[in-house]
Amino acid sequence: MADFVTPGSHLLLDFWGAKNIQNKEVIEKAMREAAKACNAKVLGVTLHEFGEGAGITGVAVLAESHISIHTWPEISYVALDVFMCGKCDPQNAIPVFEKYFEPTKSSFSLHKRGAS
Amino acid sequence: MADFVTPGSHLLLDFWGAKNIQNKEVIEKAMREAAKACNAKVLGVTLHEFGEGAGITGVAVLAESHISIHTWPEISYVALDVFMCGKCDPQNAIPVFEKYFEPTKSSFSLHKRGAS
Repeated sequence: MADFVTPGSHLLLDFWGAKNIQNKEVIEKAMREAAKACNAKVLGVTLHEFGEGAGITGVAVLAESHISIHTWPEISYVALDVFMCGKCDPQNAIPVFEKYFEPTKSSFSLHKRGAS
Repeated sequence: MADFVTPGSHLLLDFWGAKNIQNKEVIEKAMREAAKACNAKVLGVTLHEFGEGAGITGVAVLAESHISIHTWPEISYVALDVFMCGKCDPQNAIPVFEKYFEPTKSSFSLHKRGAS
């Protein structure tokens, strides 16, 4: 549990021109693979589909915090966030999500959480 | 569904000197009340306890995106994030969390997500 006392790193990641963002199976696979790339342990994944043509919201609860995804297929946009505590680096999730969602444009910001 | 096409507002909120952060019931109550204060609909809440003396991770999946909480009781620190799409304002969650966790120090940042 030593790592757990360290506050976290929080990555906000935006993709435009993204593919596969109405595909629940691809989204869950991407989230699980992203967690693995960060050496994080998935405790559970919740996915919610908002209906035909609409987006998907997914959250993976991790032993090291969380990953969330919200998709807007109507504008080919995806908002992701990856919060990791301990030694895990959330930036390792970026290439995994790029592989699955193939964005034409992306941006990210990294926020140190809990540095007093 | 008109609101759903609008990308979101993402609030990152940090509390130090926080109380009640080992109390699962208080955390779930705070998350549900915070969602209500933002006029958001809770689809489900997942809470994970890391054991005696350790923190709690909680995620509320919302029709309007999500709320997450990660607590570090050993340093009285809480990391929260509130992601809302549509017309919901995540800043309305701040006084609710302040009421339940009574921080001695706090900071927040607000990030517009999906503005291309």
